Amino acid sequence: MLKLYGFPVSNYVNMVQLALMEKGIAYEYVLTFPDRSEKFLAMSPRGKVPCMETPGGFINEASVILEYLESLGTGKALLPADEVARARVRSLMKEIELYIELPARMCFAEAFFGGKVPDAVKALARENLLAGIATLKRHGSFSPYVAGEEFTLADIVFFFSIELAARVGQVVFGLDLLKDFPQATALLAKLHENPNVQKIVAARDAGMPAFIAATRARIAAGG
Amino acid sequence: MLKLYGFPVSNYVNMVQLALMEKGIAYEYVLTFPDRSEKFLAMSPRGKVPCMETPGGFINEASVILEYLESLGTGKALLPADEVARARVRSLMKEIELYIELPARMCFAEAFFGGKVPDAVKALARENLLAGIATLKRHGSFSPYVAGEEFTLADIVFFFSIELAARVGQVVFGLDLLKDFPQATALLAKLHENPNVQKIVAARDAGMPAFIAATRARIAAGG
Repeated sequence: MLKLYGFPVSNYVNMVQLALMEKGIAYEYVLTFPDRSEKFLAMSPRGKVPCMETPGGFINEASVILEYLESLGTGKALLPADEVARARVRSLMKEIELYIELPARMCFAEAFFGGKVPDAVKALARENLLAGIATLKRHGSFSPYVAGEEFTLADIVFFFSIELAARVGQVVFGLDLLKDFPQATALLAKLHENPNVQKIVAARDAGMPAFIAATRARIAAGG
Repeated sequence: MLKLYGFPVSNYVNMVQLALMEKGIAYEYVLTFPDRSEKFLAMSPRGKVPCMETPGGFINEASVILEYLESLGTGKALLPADEVARARVRSLMKEIELYIELPARMCFAEAFFGGKVPDAVKALARENLLAGIATLKRHGSFSPYVAGEEFTLADIVFFFSIELAARVGQVVFGLDLLKDFPQATALLAKLHENPNVQKIVAARDAGMPAFIAATRARIAAGG
């Protein structure tokens, strides 16, 4: 059986878990907080979660795990069959990750954990984040899903990236990133109705206070 | 026929061109410098090159184009057949892009174009770059190729990322990132012997002085 290593507050872990649940693939969730031990780095070379244990070895990076799950060919397809349509879903996933999630992540310490992000880093993150949202407006379909009429991997990446980014926009920049983006707001609301999403969000929210407290303590201690 | 839009100094364009050449896929190279026009943004939603025109529409993001080319099933395979082995190559590609190329890119203005990158951004880039190199040492095979005995997409991403990152390390941080990494240096030398690499590098080097001058002028003008 596949083993998913991670913890319920990690948005990238949540992406993989939602794909597993949507596909109905059996898996074991191994509660794991990343560390710098040799043992963990042998499983996940950048020391991050999620990582996944398969019969053929470990796989790391959420987007790579999502492709692997798709390659199994079981359960609901989360990528279209046509190769150009698949490429468009992958582009949307990549654009959300590189141009929305990662710039927002540069500001997580200030948005969530009582830290302070240097102004120069915030300026860079803000510029990238705004360009990323503009890209998603331009490229997304939202009819009603990110890439069109079908739920795909792009919706999974969207859901677990956009709310965090919007929160960073609000707290760190005083910006409402979704103000002129009603299609995104409508899709977030729709995805919140998905029972698998609800289970993951409930576990995330239950784990959040302890995670925030631990991270705040680490940051306050200079770690 | 596939059309590759880009210019020869772009390392991401070069990745796609090398895959096309290695596979022997016919393509037209459409010399294109990215702009913010509606026309170009309709082709490439983040306004970047490379983008590729296929019979089914445009595709953007180099890694997505590389997957698309692989899906055509023509020419030399640049991903292994086994799905876990494919995932490992994709992880290596992603790790090199996210944890080496992108942090190095944050410092390109200072490394190549006479600009100044804020100290806080440099500190972040340096930390990520060192972690990225450590990840590649840990995860790469270099026997002699990044993922093992076969040339794969990971070698393409490696080649067009590592020399730039090493240059950033040297110029911006006074660090020799490849000092304790002889396998990487040996692989770079081996890849430089590839005739397709040589053609791309020659075109890149021929275009470099004009590109650097134009970018320096733009940065000096505050653009």
